[in-house]
Amino acid sequence: MAVVVPFESRSPATIDRLNDLVAADMERVNTTILSRTGSQVAMIPEVANHLISSGGKRLRPILTLAMARLTGYSGGGHVKLAAAVEFMHTATLLHDDVVDESEMRRGKLAARMLWGNEASVLVGDFLLGQAFKMMVEVASLKALEILSSAAAVIAEGEVMQLGAAKNTATTEDDYLAVIRAKTAELFAAACEVGPALAARPKDEQSACRSFGMNLGIAFQLVDDALDYGGTAAKLTLPVVLAFRRGGESERAFWRRTLEEGEATDADLEHAISLMTRHRALEDTVKRARHYGAIATDALALFPASPMKEALEETVEFCICRSN
Amino acid sequence: MAVVVPFESRSPATIDRLNDLVAADMERVNTTILSRTGSQVAMIPEVANHLISSGGKRLRPILTLAMARLTGYSGGGHVKLAAAVEFMHTATLLHDDVVDESEMRRGKLAARMLWGNEASVLVGDFLLGQAFKMMVEVASLKALEILSSAAAVIAEGEVMQLGAAKNTATTEDDYLAVIRAKTAELFAAACEVGPALAARPKDEQSACRSFGMNLGIAFQLVDDALDYGGTAAKLTLPVVLAFRRGGESERAFWRRTLEEGEATDADLEHAISLMTRHRALEDTVKRARHYGAIATDALALFPASPMKEALEETVEFCICRSN
Repeated sequence: MAVVVPFESRSPATIDRLNDLVAADMERVNTTILSRTGSQVAMIPEVANHLISSGGKRLRPILTLAMARLTGYSGGGHVKLAAAVEFMHTATLLHDDVVDESEMRRGKLAARMLWGNEASVLVGDFLLGQAFKMMVEVASLKALEILSSAAAVIAEGEVMQLGAAKNTATTEDDYLAVIRAKTAELFAAACEVGPALAARPKDEQSACRSFGMNLGIAFQLVDDALDYGGTAAKLTLPVVLAFRRGGESERAFWRRTLEEGEATDADLEHAISLMTRHRALEDTVKRARHYGAIATDALALFPASPMKEALEETVEFCICRSN
Repeated sequence: MAVVVPFESRSPATIDRLNDLVAADMERVNTTILSRTGSQVAMIPEVANHLISSGGKRLRPILTLAMARLTGYSGGGHVKLAAAVEFMHTATLLHDDVVDESEMRRGKLAARMLWGNEASVLVGDFLLGQAFKMMVEVASLKALEILSSAAAVIAEGEVMQLGAAKNTATTEDDYLAVIRAKTAELFAAACEVGPALAARPKDEQSACRSFGMNLGIAFQLVDDALDYGGTAAKLTLPVVLAFRRGGESERAFWRRTLEEGEATDADLEHAISLMTRHRALEDTVKRARHYGAIATDALALFPASPMKEALEETVEFCICRSN
């Protein structure tokens, strides 16, 4: 299903330039990922690689590499930290699928459908353990602090979402608090560890963190707009907007579908008509654009460079992307 | 249900002396645990404290405190590490309940029965994140290395167990590999971080680790013997022994009940009669006694002290305990 959202950009932004700039490092990250999913317990690499090799954009580890380069880091620790960030993300996806009882993930059957909830929970735990092992090997207490705090905040955000998912009383601010924690915090941490490793001044670390945080919020909001077919049954910003802008009978509809947690085809059609009437999808992308602008400005203190331009284009890509 | 196992000790061993010796430190651990389960997300302390305050023995954090004292550590880092060890253990229990679809834990309804699988998975993740945060605060890379490795090994052991749980081809050696990883590794790590913090020589660190590893194996084997009512439906050492010592029709029985994953009352009665006939429970406790002896000898290089005696009595307690 496709949704027509009015984009203001001229030619479609991509992350090709960013990918090119970190390609050599990313090769090392991929090798690390492959070797660290290894285990004499055969099910572990099977489950882990089912998801890891399913064609995700690897945006988070790419950001770790990019920020390390942008801030002039010359060591090798960013490779393990980037792999650790991707493992944290993968562990979260495995656990999310169990929590949401998802059947699909990235166009493939979710791991839990093939190996069961047990394997998804435990392989997620294994990847988290491996992530921490890699961080410890890098031996930067500052990076450890950033990523271990992120792990706790992300889980906190996921629990917060449990409470918000069926609750139409959730305000836009409440919802933002959820996505800051569950999604944007890892983007922020992924961006902050590079300058932390490079021992750059606090203002550069904060700038990179702010870039990641705001990009992460924008990324999640666009996800919500793209996944509008799924939003009829769970609370996302388009639903928050449509609910608040709607009349009493519309609100009753949203309460019912969120309560039931799944939508029939007719419900979905009605949900889309309400979101269209109230411009909920367009305005969600507009909100994303606002956070994207903050992300771009966070980088303003860095001098012009191909990496800075590629990161600016990445913001545009995250807002204009169609998948 | 109680099982009569012939114990060789004179008077019942307890962990009272060990508890007394670490009481002041343990008070600080309990305060830390309470404050670190705090969150503005109300469900987190609710779920965490349901399990944490359900009357576990807190053996693992007690061992961390005891080993730090035994090896002359005089700083304060052992308190946070002990709390981190208990959080890692609690996270494992929350995830185990989801994996095993358990209804009860420590005589209370399992958290997942009250708050759902979602909350058990995510609050477990939160506690793991908090555990790592506390470890990072202590800022000992050696302790971080020990505990992050343990986290990965534990998860690996749990996945190994998924494969072994219904498989009667599992040998005693295979089974030992599972419980070393899923249970004994955390005991070993809990014991090793104290001397690591105290920067004691390698032989003392290894001795403490060996004590914990072997005590952990003994502890789990006794658990298996005590939980013989549950063993009819899952593979534990008593089942491994009874299966191997039995005839073909007995083996067919074990294959069927393990395959089904749950036992009727009649199955349970039959399982107990087979375990009794083959002395499977007594011999499981005998095996535990063997590992207990190794644990005790691991401490031999330390001079006599009240702490050393209390730790020796703890070995006896773990073997003779009835719950």
